[in-house]
Amino acid sequence: MKQQSVIYLDHAATSWPKPAGVGEAMMEILNGPSANSGRGSYGMALKAARTIFQTRVRLANLFHIDNPNDIVFTSNTTEALNLAIKGCLKPGDHVIATMVEHNSVRRPLEYLKRTQGIQVDYLALNSEGELDLAELERAFRPETKLLVCAHSSNLLGSILPVGEMSRIAHEHGALILVDAAQTAGRYPVDVSSMGIDLLAFPGHKSLLGPQGTGGLYIHPNVDLEPLLHGGTGSQSEALEMPLVRPDRYEAGTLNAVGIAGLGAGVNQVLEIGVEQIYSHEWQLTQNIMTELGKIKKVTLLGPEPGKPRTGIVAFTVEDQDASSVAFQLDRKFGIAVRAGYHCTPLGHMTAGTSAGGAVRASVGYATTEGDIDALIAAIQYIAK
Amino acid sequence: MKQQSVIYLDHAATSWPKPAGVGEAMMEILNGPSANSGRGSYGMALKAARTIFQTRVRLANLFHIDNPNDIVFTSNTTEALNLAIKGCLKPGDHVIATMVEHNSVRRPLEYLKRTQGIQVDYLALNSEGELDLAELERAFRPETKLLVCAHSSNLLGSILPVGEMSRIAHEHGALILVDAAQTAGRYPVDVSSMGIDLLAFPGHKSLLGPQGTGGLYIHPNVDLEPLLHGGTGSQSEALEMPLVRPDRYEAGTLNAVGIAGLGAGVNQVLEIGVEQIYSHEWQLTQNIMTELGKIKKVTLLGPEPGKPRTGIVAFTVEDQDASSVAFQLDRKFGIAVRAGYHCTPLGHMTAGTSAGGAVRASVGYATTEGDIDALIAAIQYIAK
Repeated sequence: MKQQSVIYLDHAATSWPKPAGVGEAMMEILNGPSANSGRGSYGMALKAARTIFQTRVRLANLFHIDNPNDIVFTSNTTEALNLAIKGCLKPGDHVIATMVEHNSVRRPLEYLKRTQGIQVDYLALNSEGELDLAELERAFRPETKLLVCAHSSNLLGSILPVGEMSRIAHEHGALILVDAAQTAGRYPVDVSSMGIDLLAFPGHKSLLGPQGTGGLYIHPNVDLEPLLHGGTGSQSEALEMPLVRPDRYEAGTLNAVGIAGLGAGVNQVLEIGVEQIYSHEWQLTQNIMTELGKIKKVTLLGPEPGKPRTGIVAFTVEDQDASSVAFQLDRKFGIAVRAGYHCTPLGHMTAGTSAGGAVRASVGYATTEGDIDALIAAIQYIAK
Repeated sequence: MKQQSVIYLDHAATSWPKPAGVGEAMMEILNGPSANSGRGSYGMALKAARTIFQTRVRLANLFHIDNPNDIVFTSNTTEALNLAIKGCLKPGDHVIATMVEHNSVRRPLEYLKRTQGIQVDYLALNSEGELDLAELERAFRPETKLLVCAHSSNLLGSILPVGEMSRIAHEHGALILVDAAQTAGRYPVDVSSMGIDLLAFPGHKSLLGPQGTGGLYIHPNVDLEPLLHGGTGSQSEALEMPLVRPDRYEAGTLNAVGIAGLGAGVNQVLEIGVEQIYSHEWQLTQNIMTELGKIKKVTLLGPEPGKPRTGIVAFTVEDQDASSVAFQLDRKFGIAVRAGYHCTPLGHMTAGTSAGGAVRASVGYATTEGDIDALIAAIQYIAK
């Protein structure tokens, strides 16, 4: 495989390459003042703490969060979702989720269903990934504590109307948890205007940071039971986790090196602008759909051309296994995409692709029209 | 502060500087094949998966673990300890811990005590950090499920006889969980000969890797409830976490960049040899104790000179606050140490320093005699 000349179309899994500033920021903390932030009073430790806070501030700017200390860092979106879901639900609670949730939402819910007796309804969406808001309205019960939804399906690329969903949730006294795995950094997220109580996000996807980073925004009025209990460098003598944020939810040594890199990634997103990134990625998906739509054996998943979608285009090729298509793209054309179930069996039920999975191509802010042309030509060859 | 010429004596918090290979290995994954390991079948993803597996193999060599897949990666020791403690205890279980545990052990235990009704006994140690094995023997009850211990106290530097403790635990049908935060990479750890069931370790301390890394060894006969539920890239359609290791305990995207750096750090440890590192650090602590022991106002904590200890020397200076001593060391002498409670209020009760905390100097494999001389001269000045 020609690694240097690979055409990378798996941005929904992780973004690549990262902006140059990401590695530089990481090495500055690793080789410079990498001492434990918040665990020492000497100058080196204070420098690391400042870098971590700077990343919080940038994320707060991006997501329109008033207080940066309402953002807690986690090692990935899965940990953020586990913290949110396990930290707010009690036995007897009812949860509404959707049929495009990732396993990082479904499996914690199913775990609590099995062990705590919580109840879960997964709302059906149509094959374009659209939700019937009247049906959502009817799903609420007096014991509904939480509405969880993937902001954008990691299979279909469809985008849910989070602002309207949060309004409905709040009318019923429930909280809303938004899984922004596929939107953070590539589609506008405004926790204030959208009324989001809990926002889980990855650092290594469209925020352009390194793997090992992510986080959860927790509305100041929401208190969660921490997922991790341990040392915080504050109130050491207390048996309980401190109430002060972010310490309450950040036990143990933070990934200062990764968080520094995430800060550089978010900075890049802020400089380009999320609207600009969304518009660029949307146009690329339209080009893919226009051309692949002309191939008889190709079936496209998700929203119709012209409708909003994040930079994801999944498809199937008649008579060919998804993994075989991906394998050919890799070996014959040097194009990296993903095939299979993408950790969302529910999404595949929605799309009608539970039997064979799908091929998913996903673009990033730096993907070019040339990359897309190469993909289209390769699929034309493979599906001919 | 002269950052380039700092004398760094806070290795018990995090090691610094890291070996050059650590940053290089991280940048190779970040800027090279950083695609999600295990989430794609293309060449880039496979390369990342190989690097992660290589780190597992090196850790298995270091800790004498038969199957590298019995090691699961976590973001720090705290997460590893939370996984071990919360994953194995059920309501009604009894746990034995010691009075030198870190808050990363104490707070999860106290949380389960409060919410699940588990019972906990913290065994007293003498002021040198020694445990009476007959007393340990007497502490077991029929419902004792787990013995937890810090292999080395992060305050006293004392080392517990883990091999004998595991033998006693097993005779009583209990498991042993060893917190190797202060020994992994600087003192021999052999899970086979020591009979360790669960071993929690940090990546960023004496294993010389970056922050954001750590792990838990889980004996093949022990099954834990996962701490995180989510996508694993395997058995996507299942509602439950897969049984196969390490997937069962590694939901979500791994910190591939950090784990690559950890692999380089462990490689350095293996090349120098743990016995050699222990011997070097021990000699340095003896030099510190000999000279500080001559200063009337200084009281040394932990084992007497000549006895085993990890590279930690904590002390108090009469009439001076620990944080004031650390502040002077930083600002006047460019020496980084740590002052305060070190997240171990229990340890301070053992040492008799609950009122004012202590100053902790801790050395690493690259600490020189010159560094130690500078510390000694500074304390002679401060305590005169």
